[in-house]
Order: sequence, then structure tokens, then C-alpha cells
Amino acid sequence: MSKTLAVNAGSSSLKWQLYEMPEEKVIAKGLIERIGLNDSITTVKYAGEKEERVLDIPNHTEAVRILLDDLKRFNIVKEFTEITGIGHRVVAGGELFKKSTLLSPKVIQQIEDLSPMAPLHNPAHVACMRAFDKVLPDATGVAVFDTAFHATMPEKAFRYPVPNKYYDEFQVRKYGAHGTSHQYVSQEAAKLLNKPLEETKIITCHIGNGASITAVDGGKSVDTSMGFTPLGGIMMGTRSGDLDPSVFPYLMAHDPSLKTSQDVVDMLNKESGLAGISEISSDMRDIRDGRKAGNPKAVLAFEMYCDRIQKYIGQYLAVLNGADAIVFTAGIGENAEYMREAVLDGLTWFGIELDHEKNANHVEGEISTPESRVKVFVIPTDEELMIARDVEALK
Amino acid sequence: MSKTLAVNAGSSSLKWQLYEMPEEKVIAKGLIERIGLNDSITTVKYAGEKEERVLDIPNHTEAVRILLDDLKRFNIVKEFTEITGIGHRVVAGGELFKKSTLLSPKVIQQIEDLSPMAPLHNPAHVACMRAFDKVLPDATGVAVFDTAFHATMPEKAFRYPVPNKYYDEFQVRKYGAHGTSHQYVSQEAAKLLNKPLEETKIITCHIGNGASITAVDGGKSVDTSMGFTPLGGIMMGTRSGDLDPSVFPYLMAHDPSLKTSQDVVDMLNKESGLAGISEISSDMRDIRDGRKAGNPKAVLAFEMYCDRIQKYIGQYLAVLNGADAIVFTAGIGENAEYMREAVLDGLTWFGIELDHEKNANHVEGEISTPESRVKVFVIPTDEELMIARDVEALK
Repeated sequence: MSKTLAVNAGSSSLKWQLYEMPEEKVIAKGLIERIGLNDSITTVKYAGEKEERVLDIPNHTEAVRILLDDLKRFNIVKEFTEITGIGHRVVAGGELFKKSTLLSPKVIQQIEDLSPMAPLHNPAHVACMRAFDKVLPDATGVAVFDTAFHATMPEKAFRYPVPNKYYDEFQVRKYGAHGTSHQYVSQEAAKLLNKPLEETKIITCHIGNGASITAVDGGKSVDTSMGFTPLGGIMMGTRSGDLDPSVFPYLMAHDPSLKTSQDVVDMLNKESGLAGISEISSDMRDIRDGRKAGNPKAVLAFEMYCDRIQKYIGQYLAVLNGADAIVFTAGIGENAEYMREAVLDGLTWFGIELDHEKNANHVEGEISTPESRVKVFVIPTDEELMIARDVEALK
Repeated sequence: MSKTLAVNAGSSSLKWQLYEMPEEKVIAKGLIERIGLNDSITTVKYAGEKEERVLDIPNHTEAVRILLDDLKRFNIVKEFTEITGIGHRVVAGGELFKKSTLLSPKVIQQIEDLSPMAPLHNPAHVACMRAFDKVLPDATGVAVFDTAFHATMPEKAFRYPVPNKYYDEFQVRKYGAHGTSHQYVSQEAAKLLNKPLEETKIITCHIGNGASITAVDGGKSVDTSMGFTPLGGIMMGTRSGDLDPSVFPYLMAHDPSLKTSQDVVDMLNKESGLAGISEISSDMRDIRDGRKAGNPKAVLAFEMYCDRIQKYIGQYLAVLNGADAIVFTAGIGENAEYMREAVLDGLTWFGIELDHEKNANHVEGEISTPESRVKVFVIPTDEELMIARDVEALK
């Protein structure tokens, strides 16, 4: 009996879950939000209780300190040594890490060196790793890479059509993201399909504030929308996704606030997507409300967003030459039934038939009709469980 | 009875065709290649004869002078006044030109001002317009825009998910290209389908050295792969197509030869695509030969190329919610049967069934089986005829 902590750090958040392993029983969980902003929020759920506190948490190191304090304050653990494993989700593993890897000072340094491929995320991961290592030096640390699941992509899918030297010398390629999520929901979908994973073709739509869509063939990622960094692919909350590259020099020539190409990328990461078009919010719930209220910018943002998802489903149906199922997961994928409806009602030619009642009633699992040629599933993702399992496998 | 000249100037070429209108009879045609390079080649076809000459033609102005000289030298015209109309294909019409437009000094200036949206093409068009205007000041000049056919795209398709000001103030959006070609072959496909154009859904694949794919709904473009400039969309001979924008600062930080974002765009325009991956050539025929010879870089270039076409067909099947036909046209689309086979044999789930014999035998028209749920057509494009028709309509 041992406890494993799954740590899922975002650019300004830290989600955690403590497991009893190998039973996979969740003992406690929590979320720290708005790290680095005023009024950070820390939530702990334990033994049927929930506590929420607002305090200022300047960085991920401090977030980890508060998390550990809370574990003792709530008596979730008596001694930190009860925690024998800590798994960290890591956004960018580059060409170096193609599977979950035991942490060492060298590995942590390598993850830090990969920061250009996930500038908002890898530095946060590294801060968490170092903070935990100080307090729990004997726990087994494991990095679980968002990119690892996509290591099976064929070269035709992961290479960009640019001169070879940029791949050979600088590792410029498509790496993908949300790998643990795509892997988890594709495995769960195979169960729902009642088919061996190896015989399934599944399109997984992880649609959260960050979002990516993956073509999973026989349990393996064969293509995914996210690219070199989490900026690529579909339109997201604040991110543009892929673009005609020629807009770069044009924008820089016309907008004096864009002095360097990094300024352009920052704008595309932080001020684009739903936020850039709607001018309301990056949050799909606000777009939904704006759309209901007839705000034309919210309507356009929503239409563009659904259009991009539809197009990726279409292209991955082509890549897979058909699919058994389409899965929606993550914040928007699991909760925005109006988005799923807008996307899927435009795909009836493919034999996709949404059960509108199931969809509207937030049923989990199958939301397509029995006749649908492609099943549609809503499957809540569980990246933390995948992280805990990988720690267990490496302990 | 009047003669109309259709002029199709590329960055280093000038294709022309002289018509008897309104009979649409081709009197003579020609091609000037390698303009601005050594050993330019000029070809004239007239009255069953073909002449080819190699000489140095430094620019498009000089190319027009040689073309006009040839018209007299071959006795194709006795007086230039016989030519009453000249139509010019123009790559970029921006937000200004949504249909074919009579030339005036102001219009020519506006086309020149749109050069940032087609830096290799619009300057060449303008040089041709001015050169013809000097010799034939009384002929009706018409600009036929490659972007005009795409003016029907809905906003959700033509807008990029970037802050609105970049569209409102700087007109950054998807404009598309090869419009006259997409329009022509979709009209011809409707005839082959024996259906009113308004009732057809057609995916047109204009695959040449530049290449774009369009979703045509009821005769109108509703989405297309090319973007703000002809760099966007699918992989091409030397162009990358769309990319994760975050590669920009990364490449500039790692490759000292890329000093500005314009340098990156130049590399993506001129050294990427088939040429960048194969390291052999931008010409599909060389890739075909390299692939046959087992060159792994040619194999990869070919696989990537077909993968991108497949993905666009899939996404436009989604955009249109099904299609009556897929059309292949332009140099590669009309001639590379191995490309069509590689693309379409991976789309059998959609009910697309290629007739391999017809495909291999370079049949024009239908190359799918009678059972195919989506017809596949090879239709030679005729941009020049579309240009001549637009001149006739405006005379």
C-alpha cells in the first residue's frame, strides 16, 4: 500500500490527485488556480469535504509548498514519506522523451531545456519537480509526457514540409499534446465499443482551453492537430492554431506593437482564438451566452470554432479511412453540448447521427443513435489516473 | 468578330492565348518561361505550327514586347487594333476586387499596392498591364482575379482566429487562389454530373506547382486551402503551406541565415515543400522517379504531399457534408495518376472507388467506378478561356 501523487501543472494552475496504489483509489484531490495572479484560489477535496481559500500564490514553487502543507493540515498524510511516488505531467518532451521517464537532476534539466517547445508549461513543471524534490527526496519522481503518446506518428504526419535541416538539426516537427488524455479516452472508447483496442479507429477530441484532436489507429496516435508547440492546430480559447506563415512579416510591417516574431507568437498565444474574435472572453461559456444574446462577434467566434473542429474530424476520418468512434473530452468537450451538436449535425453525410436527447442531457458514454455509422462518446478524461499508473509502472 | 488576348503571368512565366470571340475559338497561343533567368524559352503555337526559341528575357515588360512582335511576325494579326480586349489573370485582389474589373491607371495602381499579398505575382501582372497599354491603348483591359471566385466564402471560413483589428484595419484573412480554375472545373464537373450547378457539391483540387483545394457548394466557393497569400494551405512544389506559427521565432533563433521574418517566409516559399523534403526537385516527375528508385527522401516527400491532399479532401467533405464529385486539375492533378491513386485508395470508407484502369490510362472525365459514392473527375483546366469570357462580358 503506497500513496502516489499525480501533479498536473498548467501555466497558471496546479491540479493534483493523491492515489492509493495499486488500487487506483483517489484519497484526496485539489486544484490551485490563478498562480502568479492576485487572488489565487486553492481547493482541496478530502473525505467528502471541500475547502476553498483565496490567497496570493506568486509561483509554482509556492503552490507546491501550500499543497504539501494542506496534505498535513487535513491529515491526508501523517508523514510525507507515505508518498512514495510523484508523477508530473509534462507538456513538451521533444525528441528526447518518447515515454514516461524517472526523474533525475539531468532529466529535469533536459525538460527545462525543452522550454522553447512549451514556453508556458515546461518551466512550471520544472519548478514543481524541484519543489517536491526538496521536501520528498526519496519519492520516485516520474515525468509523464503529453507528447509521448504521439511518438507513434508516422513521419509523413509529424514532419513539416520545410528543408530537412530544420528537423535534422533543430528538431522542428509536430509533437502533439494532451497525449495522456487522448490515450486514456481512446482506451475507454475501445471498452465502450467492446472491441480490442488494436482493432479500433478512434478520433479523440480533447477540447479544453487548450485543445487538440487526434487520429488513433489501433490504440496508437497516427496524427494530431497540435504542432511544434501547443500553439498549432485548431482555434482555442486564446490561441490561433495553424496559420498561413506569410501573415508574420505583414503583421510586423503594419502593427508597430509587433516588433519581433516572438511578439507575434505571444499575440497568437494569448490574444487570439475565441478571445480575439469574440472580444468577450476565452471561456466557451461566455461565448455561449454572448451567442444567445445575439452578439455577432460571439456568433462568429463560435462558428469559426466549430468549423475548425469539423474540419479536423473530416481530415482524420480521411487519415484513418473511417472511424469506429469520435470521442469528446476535457472541459468544453465534456460540457458544451451545443458545440457537439453544431459540429456533428453538419456531418450526417458520414452516417454520424447524434442522439439529441442524450447529448442535451449530458449523458456520459454513447451520445449517438444506435444506427450511427460512427459512434459518438463523451468520456471524462482522467490524465491524473494515467500519470499515477505510469508512476506505479516505473516504481 | 474581335480578338481577345488572355494573359496569364506567373512569377517567371507568361502564358497567353488569343481568341476569336464570342466564338471562343483559339487562334494562337504561347508560353514564355524562365523570365528573368538565362535562356528564357518562348513558344508560339499557330496554324498547326510550333516555334520554340531560346533567348534572354530579363522581365515581363520585355516578354510582352516579344509576344507582340511574334503576333505580327507570324501574321497572327496584321494590326494590333484587331485585338480589342486583353484579360489579365491577377493572383491577389484582396478585399478590393471581388469580381473581374476594367483596367484603369487607378485600378492598376491598386493591384500594385496589393503586392504584399502576392509578392511573386502582382508585380508581374502590373508590368504586363502597363506594357500592353503602351502598345494597345484602345483595347479593353480587364483584370480577372484569382481571388474573386472565393469572395463567396462565409466569414467563418475566411477569417483567421486572430484579434479582429488585423482584419478590420489590415485585411488579414484567407483570400484563396486559382479561382478561375476552381470555377471552370466545377462548372465542367456539374455538366459531367448532369446536374444543375446550383445543386452540386464539388471538391476541386488544382494541383500544380502552386496548389489549392476548394469546397464548391452550388457553384460557389465556400472554403479553400490557400490563405492570405499563395503560401498557405497544402504542401506545394517549393512552398510549405500552413504551419504552427511558433516555428518562426524558434527558427530565427537557431538559423543565423534567417534574420527577419521575411527571410523565414522566403525560405517557406522557395526552399520548402517537395523540394525541401526530397532534396531532389520541386517537380513531381522527379519525385516520382526518385521514389521509384527507392530514394527515401523522395518517398517521404511523396507521402507527405498525398497526406496533405487527403486531409483537405476529408475536411472539405466535412465542410460540404458530402460531395458529388472530386475534381483533379492542373499540371500534377491532370497528369500524376500515381498521386491520384495514392490519395484516393486511402478514402474507400467514404465510398470513393477509383477505376484504376481509367486512372492509369489518363482518361479525361470520370475516373471512378459507376458505383463510387463520390465521382472522381480529371478535368483539364482552362483559365485562359475563363479570362477571355470575362473580357467579353465587360466589353
